[in-house]
Amino acid sequence: MQDKANILLIGCGGIGTIAALNLELGGKAIVTAVLRSNYEHVKAHGFSIKSIDHGEVKGFRPSILRNTIPDVEKENLPPYRYIVVTTKNYADVPPTVAEIIRPAVTRGYTRIALVQNGLNIEKPLIAAFPENIILSGVSFCGSHQVSLGEIVHEDDDELYVGAFRNPNLNPDEEDAAAKEYCEIYGAGGKCNPQFNPNVGFSRWRKLLYNACLNPICAVTDLDTGRIQLADGAIENLVRPAMEEIRAGAKACGHDLPPELVDFMITMDPITMYNPPSMQVDIRNGRFCEYENIVGEALKEGKAKGVPMPTLTVLYGLLKAIQWRTKERKGLVQIPEPEDHTVKK
Amino acid sequence: MQDKANILLIGCGGIGTIAALNLELGGKAIVTAVLRSNYEHVKAHGFSIKSIDHGEVKGFRPSILRNTIPDVEKENLPPYRYIVVTTKNYADVPPTVAEIIRPAVTRGYTRIALVQNGLNIEKPLIAAFPENIILSGVSFCGSHQVSLGEIVHEDDDELYVGAFRNPNLNPDEEDAAAKEYCEIYGAGGKCNPQFNPNVGFSRWRKLLYNACLNPICAVTDLDTGRIQLADGAIENLVRPAMEEIRAGAKACGHDLPPELVDFMITMDPITMYNPPSMQVDIRNGRFCEYENIVGEALKEGKAKGVPMPTLTVLYGLLKAIQWRTKERKGLVQIPEPEDHTVKK
Repeated sequence: MQDKANILLIGCGGIGTIAALNLELGGKAIVTAVLRSNYEHVKAHGFSIKSIDHGEVKGFRPSILRNTIPDVEKENLPPYRYIVVTTKNYADVPPTVAEIIRPAVTRGYTRIALVQNGLNIEKPLIAAFPENIILSGVSFCGSHQVSLGEIVHEDDDELYVGAFRNPNLNPDEEDAAAKEYCEIYGAGGKCNPQFNPNVGFSRWRKLLYNACLNPICAVTDLDTGRIQLADGAIENLVRPAMEEIRAGAKACGHDLPPELVDFMITMDPITMYNPPSMQVDIRNGRFCEYENIVGEALKEGKAKGVPMPTLTVLYGLLKAIQWRTKERKGLVQIPEPEDHTVKK
Repeated sequence: MQDKANILLIGCGGIGTIAALNLELGGKAIVTAVLRSNYEHVKAHGFSIKSIDHGEVKGFRPSILRNTIPDVEKENLPPYRYIVVTTKNYADVPPTVAEIIRPAVTRGYTRIALVQNGLNIEKPLIAAFPENIILSGVSFCGSHQVSLGEIVHEDDDELYVGAFRNPNLNPDEEDAAAKEYCEIYGAGGKCNPQFNPNVGFSRWRKLLYNACLNPICAVTDLDTGRIQLADGAIENLVRPAMEEIRAGAKACGHDLPPELVDFMITMDPITMYNPPSMQVDIRNGRFCEYENIVGEALKEGKAKGVPMPTLTVLYGLLKAIQWRTKERKGLVQIPEPEDHTVKK
C-alpha cells in the first residue's frame, strides 16, 4: 500500500466523524466525507470534538467535504477503494443503501464497508454489487453529535471488521481487504480495530446491546443509565431479551458467553445517561432501524425454532411506532375524523 | 326508596360527570361531587357537555360541589348512602382510595362503588371497611374532559354493576345494593345499567380492552383508531394480548367468547381516533394504572399457570415508564451525571 487509500465516507455524525478522524490520522487514507444537515456548518467551522480517545479536537475537517454522493463516472473522479457507510439503515424506508451509493461504486474495485447494525444487511449489497467485496464493521463507539458539528465521544472506539462472504468472490481476498481496512484505520494509534473473520459472531454479539437495550430504551424513553435504575427494567425486560438473543445466536452457531449479558448491561456506565441511537431517533420523531436489528434477529431465531417472546413484542411495538412516524411525516393517509357525539 | 339517595361522587372528569348527570337526572339521588382541578371553573360555569346519550347540555352542576373530601363527623353532615369513586386507582402511588375516602365513609352504612378498572381493587377496601358493601362498576363510556369543564361523550354509557363479595356480609344484601344503584342510575332513562352478579366476568371482559388496547396505545402513542390502521399492530400485539386475557379469564372460571376479541378491537370506530386513558395519562406525563389493570391480570394468570408473554412485556414496559414518571416528578433520586469524555 504505497499511495493513500481513496476513501468515501457516507454519514458524518457521531460514529462517522470519529471514523474519519482515525482514517486520516494514520496518514494512509484520504477521506471524502458526504455530509448533509451539518455540511454548511462543518465547511465553515470544522468539527469540534471532545473524545475519550482523541481529547479535544477543534476545527477537524476530512480532506474533502461534499454534500452530494459523488458520481465517479460523470464527475470523472478517481475511483474509491473503500466506501464506508455509517448512516442509519432503514430496511422499510427508501432509498436503500445500494441506491444511495451506486454512483460512487466502481465495479469489482470498490470495497463497501457497512458500519451499520443488524443482520442480513449485506444481502441487498451483494445483490446490487456482486463483484465487490462487502465488509462488516461492528462499532461500539459511544459518540454523538450533540449539536451541529459538535461531537461528544464518551466510549472507547471498539471496532470489529470482517468480510461478508460472497460465494462468487475469493474468501482470502475478502479477508485481506478487511485486514487492510483495519490497518488503515488503526494506523493513527488511537483505535485498534480487530479483524474478526467470524462476522456472524460479531453481529449477534452486538445485538445483545442493539436488539435489547436499544428498543427497550426507545420504547420506555429511558437511557442506558436510567434503565439500570428503573424498577425491574433489567430483570423484566433487558435480561430476558438478551437471553433470547443468546439462544438465537446459539441456534445459528454463535456461542455468546453468558457473562456478555452483564457486560452489555453495564457497558454504558449509569452516570453517562447515554440514550442509545434508537431512543434518540424516536424522541426526535425520526425513523428507526428496527427491521435489521430486531426483525432479522427474530426471523433467524424463528427459522431455528427459538422462542423469542420479548423480542416479538418489542418488534411489534417498533413496527407500530415506525408507522406512527410515517403517519406524522404524511407518508401514510388515514380517514378523516368523524363526529361521534351524535347518534347515527 | 322514598327519599333521594345521598351520593358522594369522587372524580368528576369524563366518566364521573356523565355518572353525575345520570344520577341526578332520574330524581332519585342528590349528588355531592368532589372536584379538584376543574372546581373553580365548574363552580362558575358548570359543565359543558356534548354527549351521544344526552345531547348538548350547558351549565350542568351536580347538586353540591366541593373541592375537598367531606369529613362527615367533623362537618356534621348526613351520612352518604353511596360513595362513587371514578378516579384513577394507582396501586403504587399513595394515597390509596381507602385513605382518600375514609372521612366520608359511615361504618356499615355507606356503600362504596368502585367505577374503576382492573382486578383485586376491592381487596384494600374490604380490609379498610369490613362492614361496608363494596360495589363494582365496569363502565364503557368513551367520555373525555377535553378542556376544563368541557366533556365530550362519544360512546354510549354501558355500565355493569355487581357486588364484590365480602365473606362477612350477606350476599343478598350486597346484590340488593347493586340493584338499587342500577335503579337510581338508570331512572333518568338515558342509560340502562346492567346488574351483573358475576363481577369477575365483567372485570375480565373489560380487561380485553383495558389490559390490551390501553397499554399498547399508551406505549406506541397510537389511539384506538390508528392502532387499527398501523402496520400489523392488531395481529402482532392486540390480538395476542387479548387471547392471553381470554386464557387467563378461562383459567379463573370466566369464559369470554372468542368473538369478544373483534368486538373490543372495533369498539371504538377508527374515525373516533380515541386515545384510551392510559395513553392520555402517559402523553401528559401522569401516572398510569398499570398495576391493577395489567399486573393483577398477570398475577392471576400466572397463578393458574397461563403463559402471558405479551402482557409480561407490556407490564415490564409500563412499570419502567411509571418509574420514569416518578423520576421526572422528582419522586426518585438518581446519581449525578459524570464526564466520560476523559479517560479515568
